[in-house]
Amino acid sequence: MAQEFVVGVDIGGQTSKIGVVDKHGEILAQSVIRSDTYGTDAKAYIAALAEAVSLCIKQAGKKPGDIRGVGVGAPNGNYYTGQVAFAPNLAWAAKTSVPLKDLLSEALGGLPVTVTNDANAAALGEMTYGAAKGMTNFIMITLGTGVGSGIVIDGKVLYGHDGFAGELGHVTVVRNNGRMCGCGRSGCLEAYCSAMGIARTAREWLAASDEPSLLRELENITSKDIYDAAKKGDAFALRVFDYTGTLLGRSFADFIAFSAPEAIVLFGGLARAKEFLYEPMQKAMNDSVLNIWKNKVKIIFSSLKENDAAILGASALAW
Amino acid sequence: MAQEFVVGVDIGGQTSKIGVVDKHGEILAQSVIRSDTYGTDAKAYIAALAEAVSLCIKQAGKKPGDIRGVGVGAPNGNYYTGQVAFAPNLAWAAKTSVPLKDLLSEALGGLPVTVTNDANAAALGEMTYGAAKGMTNFIMITLGTGVGSGIVIDGKVLYGHDGFAGELGHVTVVRNNGRMCGCGRSGCLEAYCSAMGIARTAREWLAASDEPSLLRELENITSKDIYDAAKKGDAFALRVFDYTGTLLGRSFADFIAFSAPEAIVLFGGLARAKEFLYEPMQKAMNDSVLNIWKNKVKIIFSSLKENDAAILGASALAW
Repeated sequence: MAQEFVVGVDIGGQTSKIGVVDKHGEILAQSVIRSDTYGTDAKAYIAALAEAVSLCIKQAGKKPGDIRGVGVGAPNGNYYTGQVAFAPNLAWAAKTSVPLKDLLSEALGGLPVTVTNDANAAALGEMTYGAAKGMTNFIMITLGTGVGSGIVIDGKVLYGHDGFAGELGHVTVVRNNGRMCGCGRSGCLEAYCSAMGIARTAREWLAASDEPSLLRELENITSKDIYDAAKKGDAFALRVFDYTGTLLGRSFADFIAFSAPEAIVLFGGLARAKEFLYEPMQKAMNDSVLNIWKNKVKIIFSSLKENDAAILGASALAW
Repeated sequence: MAQEFVVGVDIGGQTSKIGVVDKHGEILAQSVIRSDTYGTDAKAYIAALAEAVSLCIKQAGKKPGDIRGVGVGAPNGNYYTGQVAFAPNLAWAAKTSVPLKDLLSEALGGLPVTVTNDANAAALGEMTYGAAKGMTNFIMITLGTGVGSGIVIDGKVLYGHDGFAGELGHVTVVRNNGRMCGCGRSGCLEAYCSAMGIARTAREWLAASDEPSLLRELENITSKDIYDAAKKGDAFALRVFDYTGTLLGRSFADFIAFSAPEAIVLFGGLARAKEFLYEPMQKAMNDSVLNIWKNKVKIIFSSLKENDAAILGASALAW
């Protein structure tokens, strides 16, 4: 019988989500385990994960023989090596390389396992089930705590020479006196246009002026606070979004010069602020891009439910 | 009998070079026609080109039946459409789209013709016969009058959604008050790091200071003059190269974050100044790139003879 189902596993810093998925992107069963209670013991984590995967397959009313494979999206997951290496948010992989693909496959009695990073998984999910269905050339940008990217060329995720292609959160957008980034360098897109980045912009600007804003009352400003303030018409918050969207749009112009995509697809917590980001982003992109692409490249937003997207993306790897 | 030969055609603003090439990159026969004596009459140009191609095949001692195909590298040549469109340096294609692939194939009795732009052809040439032999992921940067690029992913040239991918000469390297570029925008890599760009740097810097330099005696400084001055140890000229190399290296760091290539391959007139460009370029690249790629991506220079490279590149398209 045809193997008509796949398993998607989304490994995050705190939890790992597991889902059994059919060809239409329907999640038949799902479950969650902790990622952060195994210390540095990668084997213990992987044993728990394999058990949860097996249970989830059972829960969906399926047998391992019905499953074509398991796709795993993980921070720093490498498609070529199948390893998760030096991922700061995963204690069991923070200081070492864990051969996740091999260990998990072994623990699952030989089921094929494929690994990639979370942004690549998101791109695959969008192409298989979401807003990029039918597209063969697009760039997925994930605007979350950080900025990630998954680049699709001729229908395939771009992995590059070493499996690490698509680190667009770390192109330099501010060359002189740029903000320090978590990667140790300065001026990265991520330092400005992630959820953390936009909050830094607001805090810096508040400290540098006396402009009134609803945000002044708050102790620790988050991207959600800026969104809420903008919703209420706060001019300061709106300018923060304007600046963030402009930096994104300019970067998109450079990305387009590289791979000439049909669309830029946005996903992640910060992408929910599309009503405030879309216009400055699109304007800056079209102002900055080479003439041949002016008003030709679409900016679209993920159409997957945010809770399902990570599982769907990872599962898409396994087809 | 196997078709063991191809024809390469390199269309430039003034001349078009034609060569019959074997599998090892040996040019068996070659010829040249003018590109600029046909005014806006594309058909007349193509008729002359077809005649020259046929003659060149005969000159090589071959018959049309021995030829697998004709590869054409042309400014603004589009691989998907087979057209040359709005190429400012070609009078017969400056204000219109010329279906070069179809017209030339027809004029050659149905020989398959493939068209791409000159930088993509250069990348193919380098991969098939030159410094990138055996590489499947690299970025070719051509440093000529302008800055062009050909991006190779998994052994194939990246064309993107519309066939125009790889315009890396037009990423923005100077964001505020950047120099005007020929493309109508400002701050492009090409405005700083082409042969024209480096001459502009020298002229601007000379105008802005009293620093002594051999270049002060010259009326119209070219990139070659700067090279000659640097050769003589002129400190000013050396600093101009240092700046140019630094801008290139920083841009390379962003390109690497996109496609994770094994190498950046340089070609073109300005690349001949490698003794002055290599060090600042490599330093800036490794200073600017994400840690995972530090000291891992090679910068190499074309190994093809400059006179042959354009024909070889175009011919590689036809295999």
